[in-house]
Amino acid sequence: MGLNDLESLRGKVDELNLEILRLINERAEVVQEIGKVKEKQGVNRYDPLRERHMLNLLKDNNNGPVPQSTVDHIFKEIFKTALELQEDDHRKALLV
Amino acid sequence: MGLNDLESLRGKVDELNLEILRLINERAEVVQEIGKVKEKQGVNRYDPLRERHMLNLLKDNNNGPVPQSTVDHIFKEIFKTALELQEDDHRKALLV
Repeated sequence: MGLNDLESLRGKVDELNLEILRLINERAEVVQEIGKVKEKQGVNRYDPLRERHMLNLLKDNNNGPVPQSTVDHIFKEIFKTALELQEDDHRKALLV
Repeated sequence: MGLNDLESLRGKVDELNLEILRLINERAEVVQEIGKVKEKQGVNRYDPLRERHMLNLLKDNNNGPVPQSTVDHIFKEIFKTALELQEDDHRKALLV
């Protein structure tokens, strides 16, 4: 393996980064939709049981090499963002 | 929109979670490959310029709704993991 392999592997990482970014944004959009549905139903936005369900599902499907503790950490960050975006939407809705 | 829509949207989030998980693990595997190439070349594993390049590429391609500061945060976590896995491989290689 030489420098060319390194460049090609790095190109692969760049592609994967962009695909992960796309999915994180798509996920955030779906969570914003969920926020709107809950808003109409008057349901509380934050649901710790739902978060636990998602983490369990990830755990059951994590074949590595990334350790579960790190998967949990990354996804908790992703969950937090989505909730913050929902709260922004809620504030905007209150201002209308 | 009713409860059924909520269930269907949650199903979508679960699917996206698993796809993100799959890509994060795939990315880690490619980074482990990169570690092996660098090992053979005697090149330093941590490369801050490469990390800057990846963050810039993500910034140029982030169409939201997730804010860039959060994207940076999530990916720095992903980078850190990958580096830790490389270091594990390195230690194992030294023990052989």
